[in-house]
Amino acid sequence: MTLSVLWDATAIAVVGATDREGALGRLPVEHLQRYGYAGRIVPVNPKGGTVCGLPAQPSLTDAARSGAIDLALVMVPAAAAADVVGEAGRVGVGVCVVMSSGFAETGPEGRQRQDELVRVAREAGVRLVGPNCIGSVGFGTGQVACFSPLFTADDVPSLSGRVGFATQSGALGYGAVSLALERGLGLGVAVNTGNEADVGTLEVLESLADDPGIDALIGYVEALADGERLRRIASSGKPFALLKAGTSEACSRAAASHTGALATSDRVVDDVLRQLGIARAKDVDELLDIADALVAPRKPAGPRVAVVTTSGGSGILAADAIEQQGLELATLTRATRAALDEVVPAYGATANPVDVTATVMSDPTLFERSLDLIAGDAGVDAVIACFCVLTGQQVMGIVDSLRRVAERTGKPVLVTRTGADFLAPEASGAMRAAGLPSYPTPARAVRALAACWTTGRAQPNPLQHSDVRAPGRLDEPGLKAWLREAGVAVPPGRLVSDATDAAAAVREVGGRAVVKAVVPGLLHKTEAGGVALGITPESAAEAYDRMAALGAQTAGSGVLVEQLAAPQHAVELLVGVTPTPLGPVLSLAAGGVLTEVLGDVTFRLLPLGEGEAASMVDDLRSAPLLRGHRGSPVLDEAALVQLLERVAGLGPALPEGSSLDLNPVLVTTDGCLVLDAAVATESAPGTTTEEV
Amino acid sequence: MTLSVLWDATAIAVVGATDREGALGRLPVEHLQRYGYAGRIVPVNPKGGTVCGLPAQPSLTDAARSGAIDLALVMVPAAAAADVVGEAGRVGVGVCVVMSSGFAETGPEGRQRQDELVRVAREAGVRLVGPNCIGSVGFGTGQVACFSPLFTADDVPSLSGRVGFATQSGALGYGAVSLALERGLGLGVAVNTGNEADVGTLEVLESLADDPGIDALIGYVEALADGERLRRIASSGKPFALLKAGTSEACSRAAASHTGALATSDRVVDDVLRQLGIARAKDVDELLDIADALVAPRKPAGPRVAVVTTSGGSGILAADAIEQQGLELATLTRATRAALDEVVPAYGATANPVDVTATVMSDPTLFERSLDLIAGDAGVDAVIACFCVLTGQQVMGIVDSLRRVAERTGKPVLVTRTGADFLAPEASGAMRAAGLPSYPTPARAVRALAACWTTGRAQPNPLQHSDVRAPGRLDEPGLKAWLREAGVAVPPGRLVSDATDAAAAVREVGGRAVVKAVVPGLLHKTEAGGVALGITPESAAEAYDRMAALGAQTAGSGVLVEQLAAPQHAVELLVGVTPTPLGPVLSLAAGGVLTEVLGDVTFRLLPLGEGEAASMVDDLRSAPLLRGHRGSPVLDEAALVQLLERVAGLGPALPEGSSLDLNPVLVTTDGCLVLDAAVATESAPGTTTEEV
Repeated sequence: MTLSVLWDATAIAVVGATDREGALGRLPVEHLQRYGYAGRIVPVNPKGGTVCGLPAQPSLTDAARSGAIDLALVMVPAAAAADVVGEAGRVGVGVCVVMSSGFAETGPEGRQRQDELVRVAREAGVRLVGPNCIGSVGFGTGQVACFSPLFTADDVPSLSGRVGFATQSGALGYGAVSLALERGLGLGVAVNTGNEADVGTLEVLESLADDPGIDALIGYVEALADGERLRRIASSGKPFALLKAGTSEACSRAAASHTGALATSDRVVDDVLRQLGIARAKDVDELLDIADALVAPRKPAGPRVAVVTTSGGSGILAADAIEQQGLELATLTRATRAALDEVVPAYGATANPVDVTATVMSDPTLFERSLDLIAGDAGVDAVIACFCVLTGQQVMGIVDSLRRVAERTGKPVLVTRTGADFLAPEASGAMRAAGLPSYPTPARAVRALAACWTTGRAQPNPLQHSDVRAPGRLDEPGLKAWLREAGVAVPPGRLVSDATDAAAAVREVGGRAVVKAVVPGLLHKTEAGGVALGITPESAAEAYDRMAALGAQTAGSGVLVEQLAAPQHAVELLVGVTPTPLGPVLSLAAGGVLTEVLGDVTFRLLPLGEGEAASMVDDLRSAPLLRGHRGSPVLDEAALVQLLERVAGLGPALPEGSSLDLNPVLVTTDGCLVLDAAVATESAPGTTTEEV
Repeated sequence: MTLSVLWDATAIAVVGATDREGALGRLPVEHLQRYGYAGRIVPVNPKGGTVCGLPAQPSLTDAARSGAIDLALVMVPAAAAADVVGEAGRVGVGVCVVMSSGFAETGPEGRQRQDELVRVAREAGVRLVGPNCIGSVGFGTGQVACFSPLFTADDVPSLSGRVGFATQSGALGYGAVSLALERGLGLGVAVNTGNEADVGTLEVLESLADDPGIDALIGYVEALADGERLRRIASSGKPFALLKAGTSEACSRAAASHTGALATSDRVVDDVLRQLGIARAKDVDELLDIADALVAPRKPAGPRVAVVTTSGGSGILAADAIEQQGLELATLTRATRAALDEVVPAYGATANPVDVTATVMSDPTLFERSLDLIAGDAGVDAVIACFCVLTGQQVMGIVDSLRRVAERTGKPVLVTRTGADFLAPEASGAMRAAGLPSYPTPARAVRALAACWTTGRAQPNPLQHSDVRAPGRLDEPGLKAWLREAGVAVPPGRLVSDATDAAAAVREVGGRAVVKAVVPGLLHKTEAGGVALGITPESAAEAYDRMAALGAQTAGSGVLVEQLAAPQHAVELLVGVTPTPLGPVLSLAAGGVLTEVLGDVTFRLLPLGEGEAASMVDDLRSAPLLRGHRGSPVLDEAALVQLLERVAGLGPALPEGSSLDLNPVLVTTDGCLVLDAAVATESAPGTTTEEV
């Protein structure tokens, strides 16, 4: 169902409303009236009376008699909330925003009360927002269904726009809303989800993605799960930026204990957001900076940025940021540079960053001419124009030129104005009105542009896999048989029955073998002496006996003989599938003993899309080792990509909650070989739930 | 000499001053008058007349007749500037600020003119600021000796403070000044150095470090050289933050071509600034954020931060930032937490971050009590207090409590207020007046606090080295003899004269040896087949012949026999000394073929201080490999530290402009061994000068 009544309701009941000045229970009624909400507002209070001049109904049931209510704000004491939610269901109210606190955030007793609230809501067929939340706002309709003191202030700018914002945190979220209003960034909707007992931030964002009044999505979350929903939101094509707090180890724990949700490793979050084309903001400022660019009229069609500046310093800072953010400093064509040479004086620069100089700036025709040349260059996808001490007199002409050039070329133009507002009080408003996102520093403009380029692009098609059966057995020989069947190369070999059979098997695989103990529950096989390398038919019996002894006490044990893989040139990697709160992820890491030390790892949410396996290899810092580093031979990257895609297809066939570890995977000059395979099942995989 | 006349002159001549409204040559006179400069202002113009009501003198010589001039602003056409500077020298003007453009920034001809200007200034005994600069400002004295349009604006806040700012870029620099004024950050001095033909940003900062009116130093630079001056400024004990632009490869080149200075690798800049205790800002915003914290009344005595919040979200964002910035989330004592439990309701949190809840906030006594407990905890060095939608009514009480607690405990308290100014218009001013730096987001507050902790601390004493002689020869045997003499372990071995001698030498070193060709100019010895491993007395003759053949055509060639080092457990590293524009640096990198791929490297400017070698080892991402990673033995880190210190001592004995590469250095369980040593001399070492 859509949650659009949170910003577009026709009738709102405020249960627990009171007329007392300054009481929380009065604020939503006051705010709805003050901001011109045109729907019906029905205060509910068993004592009757009036609230802000409106007659209070004794109950939600009474409130519904005079017409359908589609949203109820529940502000009664925690202990009474469940009854109100149950009543809401009986009278057809689809969504309750429980603002009251006293639930999971207070400890075990509160959590019990919250569980009960959810149970009642489910039974009643009511969707529950909160509890312990501040409410929601539809800025276009004046639906300020929210008690944030922000809306009680004297000089709240009257502003609405096309950004949809969902936030788990109420105080921080409405703090951010106030900063958006202050900078002139119009929001369409803000929703606070609080304890998220039922409705979470992502579900709100999914409803916002469906809303034709919303052009860009931003969110603040402390925990992140449900990768499938994240993917659906990203696939809406609406640009989407997320501020995910809790990047540190300590914070993951704090967030987990705060919300009860399972924490996700920040590396996984980073990679999956990038994979899905969701821009990740690191701070509230940055989230708003990005939102400003996401709702601007033009988007970059590529990553190549031209910088136009009147200050060498700003140009260098912009170029620095372009490299850091993974964009490209555009190379202007010879023709563009030649034409610029006619306009820009010798002490300027016609290479990118283009320093047009004060002389050009003092002549609006020259300035617009040079902008046209730069923005018109076929190798330029976006322009960042940098100014410093820009004064009032100059601003209007510059803004007009920038706007005209942006309109003519259809390319986004972002502005950097490193100067105080008192120098040009109209600048900020004029730029916004002209559809030119503007920022105080080059780095902030570039970051916002990079986010624009990251998000709202088409998702790759998911790879199709033919039906994959579950592995018959989860020990090494079982997994290897399963891998072989799926087209993943493993060394030739088999289980052997006795010492004689072992010697025969060594001969079968070519006379040089690895003999391994297969013992259920034996982790760290190598450390336990469970792997014998370089075995010949002659040494096979001794090796067999040693390995068999390791499993003598354990049912299901055996001895595996495999061909010794000893290619002259190879790189060892780790490939795995791991369950996370976002869903199963495929991982690729630089391998061997160094895996943890190197920290050279990359993740993708399953199902994998076309081209994503190759991008994983590109992500590795150590990718050059596959590509003929310092005269070493080029290894078979295509085989690695194929292996990643096949392993991705095996993911869904793994037992629930278990992870698959292929380590090492040997990439050679001619293929890719899985030397060891294991499956592990953890109770709370990849997560921490410890209280802090 | 000090450059303090740039902000504290008694008489200023403006050469090229004119009375025409809007002319650049009028602005400094206008600004000096408008901002109340109390010294003498003498316009100089051969045509005479008046400028802003002051009679113009026909020449600098005439100007000096009526009293000593200590600063001349030179605004004449470029071609005439040298004559003015020469004249300045003759009449005893010590410093000329050449504001005119038309010098190195315009191309080869301009560069020639600039070189001539410098020559004249040196001959005349005049210090030269610029050319192509905007001028300097002493905010306390109203000495606005500068033509930035910033000072022509209508509503320039009247503000002076104790931050000294030097900036290579004029437009960006005065843009930053305007932003400082806008946020209420008082500057004492701003100086723009432009082309830096003579006086550079660092020399200005060094003079500012000596000025008793300045408490904190900030700078903007595009090129960075002269590590010794940087070290002297840092050693002044005044906190110091630097925005160094040109981090990208493209930008290093742009900056180099812009300034003619040699570019320094950004990794070296990062490490050396950290070594010297100089905070590095990444953006203009961040530089001002840091300045706000550097001039606050209290500094942290350690890295342990307590977070007090009214929003769970802000607390998590603060904790994230604390980890990212290398600070520590303080652990509150049991006693503190118990006492907090008496104050903070159950739905708050008394672990750090401490969520005091809205209930505590609504009672000023409870709020101050909890703050006292937190700031009073012996395990806390600084407090970050986070608020979101803070409204006008609440602000004053909160500010008073925060100020009193900061004063009582002597610990810095920084504020995060994530909310618009329209909610609490007095908040920002009140916090500043109370000595509480405040920021819109937790991440910005934490970044500023981290910079405070980085900078202004005492520098370690430089290590003393006994006199080191220069290496006798620069080939491998020569360098190894030199290293051995300096106490650096190399494998036993010697040059041999023929095949028989080779076999004898192999026996001398224990029967297993490496035989190496020593051929002047032979780089990549291994690739050229110049290293034979595992040689026995029997195979020595053959190996000798092979190695000798490689050098047969080259004078000075030879064959070296060394003991084969084959420890069971070892890690290969690279240790080197490299010349850079900052001065020679010691480098330590994870080694072998992987050096470039791993990018695991750290640098220190020489001379090395006590404890700095150990900190280099800590810096390596792969340090765990030395420390018993996954059951491997612990290696001899002490020997590595000693080796680093000894190699650091050898640095000054290297030939000018040459670098020393010890690669690999083998760290074993029992010592550290240099297997190969080479010296390289580059024409422009570690630098790029290519034009872009």
